[in-house]
Amino acid sequence: MSLDPTAALELGTVRVVGTGLLGASVGLGLSVSGTRVLLADVSPTALALARDLGAGVPDPGREPVGLVVVATPPDVTATVVAEELKAHPDAVVTDVASVKEGVLAALRAAGADLRQYVGGHPMAGRERSGAVAARGDLFLGRPWVLSPLPDGDPAATSTVRRLALALGAAPVVMPADEHDQAVALVSHLPQVAASLVAARLRHAPDAAVALAGQGLRDVTRIAAGDPALWAQILAANAGPVAAVLAEVRADLDRVLAALEALAQEPTQDGGAPAVGARGAVARAVADGNLGRERIPGKHGGVPARYAVVTVVIPDEPGALGTVFADIAAAGTNVEEVALEHAPGRAVGLLEVSVLPAVREHLEEALAAAGWHVVA
Amino acid sequence: MSLDPTAALELGTVRVVGTGLLGASVGLGLSVSGTRVLLADVSPTALALARDLGAGVPDPGREPVGLVVVATPPDVTATVVAEELKAHPDAVVTDVASVKEGVLAALRAAGADLRQYVGGHPMAGRERSGAVAARGDLFLGRPWVLSPLPDGDPAATSTVRRLALALGAAPVVMPADEHDQAVALVSHLPQVAASLVAARLRHAPDAAVALAGQGLRDVTRIAAGDPALWAQILAANAGPVAAVLAEVRADLDRVLAALEALAQEPTQDGGAPAVGARGAVARAVADGNLGRERIPGKHGGVPARYAVVTVVIPDEPGALGTVFADIAAAGTNVEEVALEHAPGRAVGLLEVSVLPAVREHLEEALAAAGWHVVA
Repeated sequence: MSLDPTAALELGTVRVVGTGLLGASVGLGLSVSGTRVLLADVSPTALALARDLGAGVPDPGREPVGLVVVATPPDVTATVVAEELKAHPDAVVTDVASVKEGVLAALRAAGADLRQYVGGHPMAGRERSGAVAARGDLFLGRPWVLSPLPDGDPAATSTVRRLALALGAAPVVMPADEHDQAVALVSHLPQVAASLVAARLRHAPDAAVALAGQGLRDVTRIAAGDPALWAQILAANAGPVAAVLAEVRADLDRVLAALEALAQEPTQDGGAPAVGARGAVARAVADGNLGRERIPGKHGGVPARYAVVTVVIPDEPGALGTVFADIAAAGTNVEEVALEHAPGRAVGLLEVSVLPAVREHLEEALAAAGWHVVA
Repeated sequence: MSLDPTAALELGTVRVVGTGLLGASVGLGLSVSGTRVLLADVSPTALALARDLGAGVPDPGREPVGLVVVATPPDVTATVVAEELKAHPDAVVTDVASVKEGVLAALRAAGADLRQYVGGHPMAGRERSGAVAARGDLFLGRPWVLSPLPDGDPAATSTVRRLALALGAAPVVMPADEHDQAVALVSHLPQVAASLVAARLRHAPDAAVALAGQGLRDVTRIAAGDPALWAQILAANAGPVAAVLAEVRADLDRVLAALEALAQEPTQDGGAPAVGARGAVARAVADGNLGRERIPGKHGGVPARYAVVTVVIPDEPGALGTVFADIAAAGTNVEEVALEHAPGRAVGLLEVSVLPAVREHLEEALAAAGWHVVA
């Protein structure tokens, strides 16, 4: 996996409009490969920063360009794409907005000629924003969705695909409506769920929050996301997100009704027991099992069933280095790794996922090397 | 952190009723410290297995015991505790059920003498169940909640506290009702949320699921839990779980109403715009920020703001070992670690969290050692 300089060179000169995290990262990644990158931004300060970081040079406006990448905030994407299509009739124009149908509808409403437009969505981001957080390898190994129009120019799609490859991303072609439904499900729903669960902790007693384990930590990790940005993203995909949230609410109502029936059960004198309530709760968890199994594992393949080897790690510099050196000495490849800290204890449990066939070998090797393997 | 043999020896002979994952793990952990452990189980097969694994010896029923640990399935816990209190009037009796109020109510209804009873909940578990999955260090570093009764014998609480310490756990005293509300919030709510999100993936198109990133993976990890066990746990804590789920549903309704208003917005000819809808969505995410910040970080302390150093890791045996050896050579302590795999790419991104002050030093050291540090 790497940036692809050949793909980059075939792009010709690239104009990047909007030099925030994504635009500056595109500029940095392409500049590394020797591509000429022309930058534009409504903010002269942002433009100068991106230039100083090596993302490209301010566009003097006199050179022909082969590709325009619109990386503005999502609420002005359609307007800027329409302007760029008009200003550069010979160039392919793409964007990086995380929702695609709204951009398309606005472009059509504006009567833009869309033959050279290909919607794009590189599925990469960081906690930090702005050009200062940009990096040339931001897109490395990430999916980059392309949403070409049915009547668009196939050569335009090839150009944007080349852009994705040049930046080390994995291009995925998907119509705009399918893309928006997909991200509602795999990105926007988890964000809302994490926020709603985390919000319940605001006024919880300290003693309750102190019992938090890895499950709560995992479920709420992305709840730390930026409210303003997420409001914009969710609003731009309001229809598909509302549709999937309505389905979740229907499931939640069933679980809630079952639990409320069960909570009444002991006090029902001769009343009907909470028939089927336990079954309804179990079904919700079982449905979750089935959904969870569909998430692709490592490398986008079928989820493998890994065996987990757990090792007690003292909280000292070098401890992780030594254990991974011992794992390497055992000739074992690590599939996943997670470090879990126990509350109130200066020690961690390292969970190393390996192929089931090598598990026993690794456990023996680590124990022989003096590690406390939790067997 | 370790098992505490001194605490174990002060316990005297311990009887463990129920030799599944938790009971057998208690037996294994105590046996290691030299404590005499007597085992009982309604299933002779399960009992023989626990004995063969080294969890203790089958209870001949003739010896005095100082402590009885009831580790049966939750739906029979109260019945067994009442029997044990009657059979061993001089012993302290505790249990390991993950919900405490229901057990207490049933014991009171049965007219049991509860002066020697102390409810317990070791917050540990595994994906696998049964004695085969048991391990003596299952409780190492985990919170072990003790719920003594106001009119109980303080010496009984000390005995159960000693049990927790003997097994390396961190004892936390909390009344039964507070405990049940706490686990509804930090354990049962995340479980339901993860299941509901994961359930939406069941019938999703393959192409949509293929876009899944780390966020979805984290939110749904615990959705792989056992449906039958979780139905029993959630039913036993139905009241507190229903209360917090009702709060989540109220929040969800607000977000859903806002998104539905926004989805209608473009087609409203002269109608009212979705006033405040974006604000409602942003507020939900902001509330999640506040809640997320309350989750304790490493070692149960105040959440530290770590700096993240990201390194590209080729998918080869030894690569992780080499990078951690280089991190150790730089003298840097690793606070958290996460390995992220990109779909369709034979490479991973290792995210190493370190104290902000050492970040730059580590990045330079790793780059000097030839690693691709994503800066």
